[in-house]
Amino acid sequence: MAVQGEAPVSAILLISCPDQKGLVNTVTQFIYTNGGNVVDLEQHVDRAEGRFFMRVAWDLTDFVIPRESLADAFNKALAIPHQMDWQLYFSDCKPRMAVFVSKHEHCLFDILARYQSHEWDIEIPLVISNHPDLEQAVTSLGIDYVHIPVNKDNKADAEQQQQQLLEQYQIDFVVLARYMQILSDDFIKSYPNRIINIHHSFLPAFPGARPYHSAYERGVKIIGATSHYVTAELDAGPIIEQDVEHVRHTDEVEDLVRKGRDVEKVVLSRAIWRHFNHQVLVYGNRTVVFGS
Amino acid sequence: MAVQGEAPVSAILLISCPDQKGLVNTVTQFIYTNGGNVVDLEQHVDRAEGRFFMRVAWDLTDFVIPRESLADAFNKALAIPHQMDWQLYFSDCKPRMAVFVSKHEHCLFDILARYQSHEWDIEIPLVISNHPDLEQAVTSLGIDYVHIPVNKDNKADAEQQQQQLLEQYQIDFVVLARYMQILSDDFIKSYPNRIINIHHSFLPAFPGARPYHSAYERGVKIIGATSHYVTAELDAGPIIEQDVEHVRHTDEVEDLVRKGRDVEKVVLSRAIWRHFNHQVLVYGNRTVVFGS
Amino acid sequence: MAVQGEAPVSAILLISCPDQKGLVNTVTQFIYTNGGNVVDLEQHVDRAEGRFFMRVAWDLTDFVIPRESLADAFNKALAIPHQMDWQLYFSDCKPRMAVFVSKHEHCLFDILARYQSHEWDIEIPLVISNHPDLEQAVTSLGIDYVHIPVNKDNKADAEQQQQQLLEQYQIDFVVLARYMQILSDDFIKSYPNRIINIHHSFLPAFPGARPYHSAYERGVKIIGATSHYVTAELDAGPIIEQDVEHVRHTDEVEDLVRKGRDVEKVVLSRAIWRHFNHQVLVYGNRTVVFGS
Amino acid sequence: MAVQGEAPVSAILLISCPDQKGLVNTVTQFIYTNGGNVVDLEQHVDRAEGRFFMRVAWDLTDFVIPRESLADAFNKALAIPHQMDWQLYFSDCKPRMAVFVSKHEHCLFDILARYQSHEWDIEIPLVISNHPDLEQAVTSLGIDYVHIPVNKDNKADAEQQQQQLLEQYQIDFVVLARYMQILSDDFIKSYPNRIINIHHSFLPAFPGARPYHSAYERGVKIIGATSHYVTAELDAGPIIEQDVEHVRHTDEVEDLVRKGRDVEKVVLSRAIWRHFNHQVLVYGNRTVVFGS
Repeated sequence: MAVQGEAPVSAILLISCPDQKGLVNTVTQFIYTNGGNVVDLEQHVDRAEGRFFMRVAWDLTDFVIPRESLADAFNKALAIPHQMDWQLYFSDCKPRMAVFVSKHEHCLFDILARYQSHEWDIEIPLVISNHPDLEQAVTSLGIDYVHIPVNKDNKADAEQQQQQLLEQYQIDFVVLARYMQILSDDFIKSYPNRIINIHHSFLPAFPGARPYHSAYERGVKIIGATSHYVTAELDAGPIIEQDVEHVRHTDEVEDLVRKGRDVEKVVLSRAIWRHFNHQVLVYGNRTVVFGS
Repeated sequence: MAVQGEAPVSAILLISCPDQKGLVNTVTQFIYTNGGNVVDLEQHVDRAEGRFFMRVAWDLTDFVIPRESLADAFNKALAIPHQMDWQLYFSDCKPRMAVFVSKHEHCLFDILARYQSHEWDIEIPLVISNHPDLEQAVTSLGIDYVHIPVNKDNKADAEQQQQQLLEQYQIDFVVLARYMQILSDDFIKSYPNRIINIHHSFLPAFPGARPYHSAYERGVKIIGATSHYVTAELDAGPIIEQDVEHVRHTDEVEDLVRKGRDVEKVVLSRAIWRHFNHQVLVYGNRTVVFGS
Repeated sequence: MAVQGEAPVSAILLISCPDQKGLVNTVTQFIYTNGGNVVDLEQHVDRAEGRFFMRVAWDLTDFVIPRESLADAFNKALAIPHQMDWQLYFSDCKPRMAVFVSKHEHCLFDILARYQSHEWDIEIPLVISNHPDLEQAVTSLGIDYVHIPVNKDNKADAEQQQQQLLEQYQIDFVVLARYMQILSDDFIKSYPNRIINIHHSFLPAFPGARPYHSAYERGVKIIGATSHYVTAELDAGPIIEQDVEHVRHTDEVEDLVRKGRDVEKVVLSRAIWRHFNHQVLVYGNRTVVFGS
Repeated sequence: MAVQGEAPVSAILLISCPDQKGLVNTVTQFIYTNGGNVVDLEQHVDRAEGRFFMRVAWDLTDFVIPRESLADAFNKALAIPHQMDWQLYFSDCKPRMAVFVSKHEHCLFDILARYQSHEWDIEIPLVISNHPDLEQAVTSLGIDYVHIPVNKDNKADAEQQQQQLLEQYQIDFVVLARYMQILSDDFIKSYPNRIINIHHSFLPAFPGARPYHSAYERGVKIIGATSHYVTAELDAGPIIEQDVEHVRHTDEVEDLVRKGRDVEKVVLSRAIWRHFNHQVLVYGNRTVVFGS
C-alpha cells in the first residue's frame, strides 16, 4: 500500500467513439508528442455497432501537459473532433467505495477481508445496511456503518438519506453486496454505471428472487453468479463478470446456496477489481472489460 | 470392443420408489442370497420428494436366477411390494442408437468419430436427416442414412416414416444432434426419456432459436450447452449434462458459435455416454445421474 | 446453528476393508435389524487394489444399540470378521479445529468469515502462529491466538508447545492456512490424516516454495491450488481438493498471486468442509471423497 | 469458405522488440500515413524482460505500398531501427498444415471433422503416420496419407523422408496429434515454433509417457491437456493452451483416458486455431497469445 507514492503516476484514459481510420494513431501521437510513455494500451472495435473503444495508460513523469489541464487539452484536441465519450483517471487517486448490505454477510466479509489485507488499493469509508446485524464487523475495521431501515412507507426518505451519505463521504461507486432492497429509478440514474450488484444466478437465467430455489426446481447441473451494473430494469444491467459451479443431483437447495456463496463472493470481488482499475466500459447493455 | 464377451456379464438395475426403511438392505439381500456379487451400487434419496433412487450392478456369474426369469422374480419379490419403478439391463446387450441431424455437422461428426474409434460400446445403425448433405459421411462408415424432408405440410407423414424406421432398426434411443425440426407431442410420447437433445445455451437461459445471438445481445460472459431429454415443452425437459465456456467482449456472434460448437459436442457426448451406461434416472423434471 | 439439537442424531460410519461379496448387505443388515434408518449410503470399490470403501449414515432415533456400546458392537459383529478399518462419528459432536498461520492472511480470514457466519458446524477454539501479526483479527472473534515463534534452534520446543496446546484444546484436526513452517515427521505422525494443508499450485506441478514464480517462469496458462493431508514427504500427501484458474500472458507474477488467493481459499475451505463432514477416506496416497 | 475472396484482404504483422517509448504510435503512423485502416491491434509489454509485443491487422484496400514490397518497406522504415523481430502474413494466404499421428485417432478425427466442415480456413494436404491404421479415414477426404514406419535403426532415414515430404507439400506448420515418436533435435530446429504438440497432462505435471497412469497414482482431482510448441527438451516447450477436467475417486485410469481425450482434442484444436490465425508469439519459453 505504501509503495503507491513511489511508483510513477499514470494517467488512464477510457474512450468510446464512432469508429474511424487512424484513431489509435491519433491518440498515441497525442500522448507521445507530449512526452508521455504508454505503459498499457488496449483497443476494441465493435464491428456490429461501428464503435471504437480504447483504454490507454501512460507514465506522467515526462508528460508536459499539467494534470490539471489535461482534461481540457484532451477534450479540445481529440474528444470534440472525434465525438468521444471519455473518462480520465490518475493512478494515485484512490477510488472511494460504499457497500450496501442486508443480512447475508459472505460478500461483505469477503470485501472486508480484502480491505483489511490491503489487497485492494481503494478506500471503503462507508457501509449502509437496512439491518443492524453487521455493525460490529464493520466498525471494528474503522469503517462507518449506518443503519437505515427501509420499508414501503419510508423508501423515498431512506434513499434521500443514503444519497446524502454518499455525497458526504465522497463515494465514487456503490457495491450492493446481497442488498435485498430494490433501488428506485431516480437513485439508479444518479449513479450511472457506478452501482455494482451481485446476482446469485448465471443471468439471464433465474432473475429476481430465490434463484437457487428456481435452479433446483429446474434441475440444472450448473449454478452461477453474475455481477453487473444496476439499471432501471431488475437484474438486466450490463454484465461485468460471471462464473459457475457444477452441481449434482445430490445437491439440495441448501447445497446450492452453500456452493453459490463462494461463486458470488469471488465474482463480485473480480467485478469490483475491474471497476476500480478502470477497466470497464459500458456501451448499450454490454461491457468492454479491458485486460480480461 | 472384442473383450466384451470375455468380461463377466452384469445385471444393472435402476430403481425409483417411495422412500422407506431398509430399501438398500432389501435389494442387496435379494442379490446376495441369490449368489450375485455387487460390483457397483449407488443410492440417492430426494428428501423433498420422499423418493428413493438406486442403481446397482452385480456380476451374474454365480447368480442362481436365470436371466430370462430375473425380471419376473424381481418384480414379484421386491418391485410390487415396494411400489418400485424399475429398469433392468444386461451388460452384454449393446444399446442401439439413431441420430437425427439437419445441416450442422459438428455433433454428428463427433459421434461418428467416437463410433469409428470404438470409443462407445453401442450400435448406431441409422441416421435420419431432413437434408441430404451429410449422407456420404454417414454411409461411408456403414451406417444407413435416410433423407426425410420435413415441411409444414408433410410433418405427420414424415414422423410416421421416422417411427417406422426406428421400429424397423430396433432403436433403443434417439439423439437429436442439432436437428432443427420440432417433434410432435405424439412422437415424443412414444419415446419417453429416450430422446436426447443438445441445446446450444446454458438452459434455462436462451431457449428456442438463435441462442448465441441472444447471448451476444445480452452481453453474457459465459456461454454454454445443455443436453436434456425431450419433452412436450420445448427446451424444458430434464437436464442430463451442462457445461460452459468463458467469452469476452472481443467475441462476436461467430466466435460464440465457434466456441460453442466444442461445448455442444462434448456435452452431448457425455449425456449419450451416461444414457447408454444406464446411469440416468428421471423423476419429475429432474435427473439423477449416477456416477457423476 | 441452534437447530442442531432438534434434528435427529445420526451415526456416520466410514469403512475400508478388503473387497468381498455381500459387504453392503452385511452392513445395512446390521443397521436395519437394529432399528436404524439409513439416510445416506455411498460405497466404492478400488478394483486395482481390491479394496472396499463405504460411508453410511443412519438415524439413531429408533436404533436399539446405545451410542456408548455401538463401537464395541460393530467391532465384534462386523469389523473384526471382515478386517475393517473404520471410524464412527455422531452428528451432534462438533469437530474442533485449530488453524496454523503465518503472515498470509487470506485463507485465515476466509475461515474466520465462515466461522463468524456460522456457515460451518464446528468449533475453532485455537489459532497458532509463528508471527504476532494476526492476533487482533482472531481474538476479536473470541478465538485464542498463541504466538509461537519458530526458528532453526527452537523448532523441537515450538512443536512440543504446539502439541500441548492441541491436546489442551482437545483439537480434532489442524488446518495449515498458508503456514510457512515445515512440520517435523514426529509431529505429522501424531495427527495422521488430520492435518490439512493448502498448497498454492495444482500439485504435483510446482511443489515447494514460490510456486507462482515457477508457474510464471514455465509460462503455464492455468494456475491452481491443492488441499491435501500432510505426510512426511513435502507437498506429496493425499489430495482432497484441487481447482484451477485460467491466466494469460498479461498476468505477471503478482497477478498470479492475486488470482491464486481466491482459488486457495475456496479449495482449502472445501477440503475442510469435506473433512469435518466425515466424507474423506485415505487409502495409500489417494483419497475417497464421498459425496463429491 | 467461399466468402474469403469477397472480404477485404488484411495484412497481419507480429512484432517483438526491446521496449521503448512511442512504439505503438510509430507502427500505427506507418500504417495510417500509407492509407491502411487498422482493424485489430493488441500490444503487450513484458515488464520483467523489457520486451514489447504487438499484433496489428489492417485493411489493405487503400494501402499504397504494394504487397510485394511491404516486407522490405517495413523492414527499412521500422524493423531495423527498432531491432524488431517480425512476421508478416496476408489474410488471403491459407496456411498449409501437416498432421503426424500414430494409433490414437481422437485428435486426428477431431481435426478431420473440422476440416471437412470447413470450420478452419487452412489447407491440410498431408498426414504422416508411423502406422498404416488410419489411412482410409484420411484419404477418403482427399488428403494424402504417407506411412513411414519408425524404429531405432531407421529414425534418421524416416525423418529425412518426412522432411522431404514437408518441403514437397509446402507445409507451413506441423501438428503432432498424439504422435508417439520423439523427434530429433535437428528435425525440431528446422521448424522453430512451427511444430505443435498435444501432451495429455497439465504440464509441467506428468511429462513423458503414461501421464494418466501417473495422475491416477498421484490421486489428483483434476486432469488436463497441454498444447505447446515442440523444443529440444521433451514436453518443455512454450505452452499455447491448457485446459483441465475434474475427476473423482471413482474414475479409474481408463476413465481418465476417456475424459482426457475430450480435453486433448479441444485444447489441441484451440492451439491450432490460434496458430493459423497468427495470434501466437514466442519469447523465451513463454507465449504471448493475442486475442485470448
